[in-house]
Amino acid sequence: MKQFAIIGLGRFGSSVAQTLYMLGHDVLVVDSDAERVDEISDYVTHAVQADATDEGALKALGLRNFDVAVVTIGTDIQSSILITLLCKELGVKHVIAKAQNELHAKVLYKIGADKVVFPERDMGMRVAHTLVSNNILDFIELSPDYSMLEMAVMEDWIGYTLKDLELRNRYGINVIAIKRDNGIEISPNGNNILLSGDVLLVIGSVKDIRKLENARAD
Amino acid sequence: MKQFAIIGLGRFGSSVAQTLYMLGHDVLVVDSDAERVDEISDYVTHAVQADATDEGALKALGLRNFDVAVVTIGTDIQSSILITLLCKELGVKHVIAKAQNELHAKVLYKIGADKVVFPERDMGMRVAHTLVSNNILDFIELSPDYSMLEMAVMEDWIGYTLKDLELRNRYGINVIAIKRDNGIEISPNGNNILLSGDVLLVIGSVKDIRKLENARAD
Ligand SMILES: Nc1ncnc2c1ncn2[C@@H]1O[C@H](COP(=O)(O)OP(=O)(O)OP(=O)(O)O)[C@@H](O)[C@H]1O
Ligand SMILES: Nc1ncnc2c1ncn2[C@@H]1O[C@H](COP(=O)(O)OP(=O)(O)OP(=O)(O)O)[C@@H](O)[C@H]1O
Ligand SMILES: [Ca+2]
Ligand SMILES: [Ca+2]
Ligand SMILES: [Ca+2]
Ligand SMILES: [Ca+2]
Repeated sequence: MKQFAIIGLGRFGSSVAQTLYMLGHDVLVVDSDAERVDEISDYVTHAVQADATDEGALKALGLRNFDVAVVTIGTDIQSSILITLLCKELGVKHVIAKAQNELHAKVLYKIGADKVVFPERDMGMRVAHTLVSNNILDFIELSPDYSMLEMAVMEDWIGYTLKDLELRNRYGINVIAIKRDNGIEISPNGNNILLSGDVLLVIGSVKDIRKLENARAD
Repeated sequence: MKQFAIIGLGRFGSSVAQTLYMLGHDVLVVDSDAERVDEISDYVTHAVQADATDEGALKALGLRNFDVAVVTIGTDIQSSILITLLCKELGVKHVIAKAQNELHAKVLYKIGADKVVFPERDMGMRVAHTLVSNNILDFIELSPDYSMLEMAVMEDWIGYTLKDLELRNRYGINVIAIKRDNGIEISPNGNNILLSGDVLLVIGSVKDIRKLENARAD
């Protein structure tokens, strides 16, 4: 079991903290806002009201013994940077920080953050892709070169097998799973007949996925 | 091509707007903050400074002709609700709104929002899962019952084939792709020998994925 410290209880920080606790880990949360600390106290191991830019306060909380700290302060960039620096100096092994923008991220990496995340930007990209077509339910970037789509089966695909449709030849995409009736069929073979209501998980190059999105824009 | 209106230019709204524009769509953005409007103006079709709770302003922008509106205001719940209502009343076909919490979401659905999103909460869950183990690089919820993990190959798996490892029998998981050398091998067959540096995409039930995460917590 790992020890996690979450600094800042905005929506992102609260979600990280509660998920880790739910997964069975030790979770300390710190926020300067007493009300936020109070609200979450039943869903984490320890909830403390403190200003995390105060080095003495972080020391007193024993932060040096933590495996991971997540600095989730979004608006106050100066505090985000200072707190990230303090966590590294106190010896926290792994420090993740949330950034506002690229410049903020650059500074965070420079002072020793092990990973920088952009929750709003990433979800914004993901949601945008789902809006382009009514059939596209989710979009996930797997790498700079490959993406995954979750898509409702197209009207004109219903009743055909994957082999009939030749999706790989026509679009360069691979169907890796079919969701149907609350179940999932992984690596479906070519003889599966697609039914109304099916949801396909497909992987393809960014270029091929873009082509499919455009062909299906409606 | 669809017409999109994005109301609010926080980090989430800006990302949605820029991604849609980059995908080739018509994008109108509205924010009451002139500076934010100015900053994004080169990356969208139209950028307008206006208070979106003002029905006359929305009408003047021709919002009735838009296919999709995304209401991305997070902090001011009252404005978020009022603007969502105005968009529906003006006849926008599809209205997506960002919510602070479950109660906010409930109200948004009640007044006609077609979809409610929780960007910070969703990314918080996703990031939390990646922190539990150094090997787990990404976590994606596919349905209430199934999840996908992106995981670095385990030390003790290197040199073995997928058939040798019997991951489906041992963990109930399915390897649907192997990322290697900037490429990706989809639906790998059992004779693939795993190499150091490989990243596996695996799908499994929530229960089985949890088991794998715990076995691999370090
Ligand atoms: N110096 C500090 N010490 C402790 N907590 C702090 C400090 N500065 C800010 N916080 C807390 O961090 C939390 C997150 O900050 P803020 O709301 O600015 O970020 P945000 O990016 O808008 O959050 P989200 O989008 O996740 O809701 C707030 O609850 C705030 O009280
Ligand atoms: N009535 C309004 N009309 C137009 N724009 C508005 C209105 N109210 C708020 N906004 C704008 O909405 C944007 C997002 O609001 P806010 O920063 O509260 O949300 P947030 O959830 O913290 O954003 P983020 O996506 O950065 O997490 C801001 O740029 C703000 O100026
Ligand atoms: Ca420890
Ligand atoms: Ca149209
Ligand atoms: Ca905010
Ligand atoms: Ca936010």
